[in-house]
Amino acid sequence: MSLLGGIEAGGTKFVCAVGSDSGEIAREIRIPTGAPVETMRRVAEFFCSGAMPAAIGIASFGPVELDRSAPDFGSITSTPKRDWRGFNIGGTVREWFRGPVAFETDVNAAALGEHRWGAARGLRTFLYVTVGTGIGGGAMVEGALLHGRAHPEMGHIRVPHDRARDSFAGACPYHADCLEGLASGQAIERRWGAPAEIIADDHPAWKLEADYLALACANWTYSFSPQRIILGGGVMRAHLFPLIRTRTAELLAGYMATPDIVEPALGIRAGVLGAIALASDQIRPR
Amino acid sequence: MSLLGGIEAGGTKFVCAVGSDSGEIAREIRIPTGAPVETMRRVAEFFCSGAMPAAIGIASFGPVELDRSAPDFGSITSTPKRDWRGFNIGGTVREWFRGPVAFETDVNAAALGEHRWGAARGLRTFLYVTVGTGIGGGAMVEGALLHGRAHPEMGHIRVPHDRARDSFAGACPYHADCLEGLASGQAIERRWGAPAEIIADDHPAWKLEADYLALACANWTYSFSPQRIILGGGVMRAHLFPLIRTRTAELLAGYMATPDIVEPALGIRAGVLGAIALASDQIRPR
Repeated sequence: MSLLGGIEAGGTKFVCAVGSDSGEIAREIRIPTGAPVETMRRVAEFFCSGAMPAAIGIASFGPVELDRSAPDFGSITSTPKRDWRGFNIGGTVREWFRGPVAFETDVNAAALGEHRWGAARGLRTFLYVTVGTGIGGGAMVEGALLHGRAHPEMGHIRVPHDRARDSFAGACPYHADCLEGLASGQAIERRWGAPAEIIADDHPAWKLEADYLALACANWTYSFSPQRIILGGGVMRAHLFPLIRTRTAELLAGYMATPDIVEPALGIRAGVLGAIALASDQIRPR
Repeated sequence: MSLLGGIEAGGTKFVCAVGSDSGEIAREIRIPTGAPVETMRRVAEFFCSGAMPAAIGIASFGPVELDRSAPDFGSITSTPKRDWRGFNIGGTVREWFRGPVAFETDVNAAALGEHRWGAARGLRTFLYVTVGTGIGGGAMVEGALLHGRAHPEMGHIRVPHDRARDSFAGACPYHADCLEGLASGQAIERRWGAPAEIIADDHPAWKLEADYLALACANWTYSFSPQRIILGGGVMRAHLFPLIRTRTAELLAGYMATPDIVEPALGIRAGVLGAIALASDQIRPR
């Protein structure tokens, strides 16, 4: 059995793990995201301090360059984090690692992790959406991870914004009141003056949040006809799910069946386990 | 070389054709959509009056049952046309035709036709959207036609509706002001009191129409990252394309590259040629 390496490269922390292709993690580290060179030095240190894995998968924040034929394959192309802009994460791993390296978006990797070991086992068409500081979505469609021309940026779809009910102008620097601008952790914090983590479950913030996420789930249901939508990320809480399910069904209005809307089975490990699944596919493609 | 049959089953007309797997049509008929039994009798008559094809593809209006294991596979499940509701189109073809029969949504079939012989040759991820009496969309994603749980109903996504600019409440019987409710041929006719065909090119109807379709193209771009979006159907006109392209680019705001937004290369034959492509795949799967 091969050892596999996974790197979840996030905007606030990197999670590195060594595990097996049954999804068990042998050792793991969390590294706060600092300057790129220093952060990647600590990543290298983690892997080089134990038995080297046979392959490494990287699940990266982005937008990223996923085209293997592009000169900047493995790079972060544009991000508000200025020192990471244009930085080649995949390339720095190849400096010290001689085995195969896979590179994916964080959300597609999490989708793959949930497909292999979590809430999407046996499914062919489903979405994995993370609602945190920002909002991002990955998709498996008819058994293949969706890349398209580059990769989706599902968090930036526009949904109806009823300004009479919600006068907040939106937090997205590109689009103001796109979904991310209205429903991300950042939007919640700016609208209500408090971070999502400390807002009580009975605060009206949550019904509004559920209604925006339901609009998105309905739009994605019409567009993809997914078997399931997995909603993860730091903003999601158990009590949001029934609100989102009910409102999504109302919006679909019987025209289509409401897909399952569920929590990730792998929880906060979906990303790093997805990275390990990517590594596994490098050794033994499925 | 095998003869192939195609049936484009539409709400206003059926187009039947016999052609080759290079996309050439040998003979063709248009049948106004009447009562189901009489319409299907005329379909049978067309095919039985010449050399029988080796396989037949059906590109159907819907919603339809595409699951081969379902008892009502090949049926229209729900439609405002009451006498077609629950009618099994695929089943009636099997009554007189012994060869393989393929059954798809009209929009997925048109997508396949454009992929084989038209504006999507060589692409892996693209959308085919028709804007006519209603709005529907098909998709190929990473080389496979998207079905998901059932099939998408892309026309029913919700987009921002600025009531100060457009006070029309929307024409969709299920969702009022979803995309179809705001931008279909039916919506145009009810909003402006005249069918789209007779509205002059310089009428403000068209800028509004382009803006709604651009909102949809932007949302689908964020969700699918498509290489191309093909816009067909009776409402589309050449002068709409530059308006839609410009507005979509504005909405994407540089966050993602704007996909090509183009007319179908097969024009009004995309559906029936897609049905022939489906038939071709029954004989020689690709």
